[in-house]
Amino acid sequence: MTGYSDLAERLRARGARAVALQFPAGLKRKAGVIAQFLKEQGFEVIVSGDPCYGACDLARETLGYADVLVHFGHTPLGDPDPRVIFEPYRVDFDPEILKNAIPCLKATRVGLVTTAQHLHLLDAMKTVLAAIGVEAVTTRGTRGCGEGQVLGCSFGAARVIGTEEILYVGTGVFHPLGVQLATGLRVVALDPFTGEVQEVNAEKFLRRRHALIEKARSADQFGLLVSTKTGQERYEMARGMAARCSRAILILMREISPEELVNLGFPAYVNFACPRLAYDDQVRFPAPVLTPQEFSILLGECLFSDYRIDELT
Amino acid sequence: MTGYSDLAERLRARGARAVALQFPAGLKRKAGVIAQFLKEQGFEVIVSGDPCYGACDLARETLGYADVLVHFGHTPLGDPDPRVIFEPYRVDFDPEILKNAIPCLKATRVGLVTTAQHLHLLDAMKTVLAAIGVEAVTTRGTRGCGEGQVLGCSFGAARVIGTEEILYVGTGVFHPLGVQLATGLRVVALDPFTGEVQEVNAEKFLRRRHALIEKARSADQFGLLVSTKTGQERYEMARGMAARCSRAILILMREISPEELVNLGFPAYVNFACPRLAYDDQVRFPAPVLTPQEFSILLGECLFSDYRIDELT
Repeated sequence: MTGYSDLAERLRARGARAVALQFPAGLKRKAGVIAQFLKEQGFEVIVSGDPCYGACDLARETLGYADVLVHFGHTPLGDPDPRVIFEPYRVDFDPEILKNAIPCLKATRVGLVTTAQHLHLLDAMKTVLAAIGVEAVTTRGTRGCGEGQVLGCSFGAARVIGTEEILYVGTGVFHPLGVQLATGLRVVALDPFTGEVQEVNAEKFLRRRHALIEKARSADQFGLLVSTKTGQERYEMARGMAARCSRAILILMREISPEELVNLGFPAYVNFACPRLAYDDQVRFPAPVLTPQEFSILLGECLFSDYRIDELT
Repeated sequence: MTGYSDLAERLRARGARAVALQFPAGLKRKAGVIAQFLKEQGFEVIVSGDPCYGACDLARETLGYADVLVHFGHTPLGDPDPRVIFEPYRVDFDPEILKNAIPCLKATRVGLVTTAQHLHLLDAMKTVLAAIGVEAVTTRGTRGCGEGQVLGCSFGAARVIGTEEILYVGTGVFHPLGVQLATGLRVVALDPFTGEVQEVNAEKFLRRRHALIEKARSADQFGLLVSTKTGQERYEMARGMAARCSRAILILMREISPEELVNLGFPAYVNFACPRLAYDDQVRFPAPVLTPQEFSILLGECLFSDYRIDELT
């Protein structure tokens, strides 16, 4: 546990006596070991056991029982509570893997974006690209993001970059899809672990979302799902839409789960919480779950041709 | 929706403008219809979509967006918030069904207990029993319970009744088991829908709990699960036990779910939230989940021969 001695030092330096710990699902297994270490170091420890998917979901209630909250695995959002310590979680890969992207790139000047766990490799990635004649440009993201960093709900570091092509380095398909839809640019995605490279094509995604809006059109009632999580609150936006649509009912939920949507039994929902819920979890939901803009399209307030990826700002 | 005109009247009478609604799982399907009715009556409406299993789990956060919370299906606990309206949910049956219990009763004077949804039939049940020579005795329960009412976490209406035999009228096996373990008396359970009658035998239950304590004994760490729900908070009790056991780590959770216990990966847990979680949901949990008293037995602070059913007071 020498890796956490430094954390214990910092906690002592700020005079913390009771410490709350919060982990995203993938790091939760570390809770027992870190909690035990801090307890043996003389701290009173309480772990937040609730699900957590981002810095938008700070364990306020758990912090209520402690002096400090240590939030693992995410970078701070906006203007964070000074009682929260953000502990990064770095995931390494060999930057040479970026050479795999070359055959797929068309420009010699590209925007470069990645996710929080790879940010420490940003300069190394640029160096590899420069050595083969590609200038990689980065800019600071929105929603508290660092240089070159995108979130699943915020693609600002791609939008304002001033290139015609973007290289996304990271896993999964959602982030590069979001970058493509947020910027309208050509986006190449590189998985730094498998080395796989692909150009993003949003067409299938857009067709699916279009079909979902049409399916929701016949619903006689819409549940507008509002979250209370620290960085996901779009209550006023939802309230405005509920006032404009007589068939819309506000629903407040902490965790938006398929089970509870089944229990509520609404024929369609609109998601004002984490944008990725509507996109990633649709297959698990019992009814269409639209984004706020998709609901606006359904209500005739805007056109599908102006489709935007849902982002939190 | 004439059935809810009266509710709208009462809401207007207390000057409510924004109304929060909360339902247990079984009644959640009514949310859409009731919310729509109240919205058409001119109220701003917000539904709590989170899971709810009792009046111990008031939707405080949803109430934060409204003037009044209407909580359906449960009776108030203790000293309730004056901004909460409790709307009972009555479930009828034919009181004549109580005659089914006669062959199984040994005494001519029995204690009578039931659950919230059948309380309105208490006098009718007594009358049926009296007509066949059985005096049914009731007393007011603990934890805000009415005359003859037990909860899954509170059996006071059975404990102080002064008879040697108890008749439980209701569904399920947990409540009569709790009554038996809380009182040590002979308990007869009658399901008022199927008419089935049985004498409660807690032996198998106790054997299972004993085996679970033994299984947990080898754990190198215990997660002490604390809930933040309005009527389930036993933080100080958990904190005291965490201080007495170096292997115990406090974990705060809103919903104690099998998935999150898997993610946390502790080899054993102790449940300070709703007592029924440890009993009813053990089969769904990945590791032993003990009651606080069972953990005391494991720590050698008390004996299994003094086993008590876990209750909230």
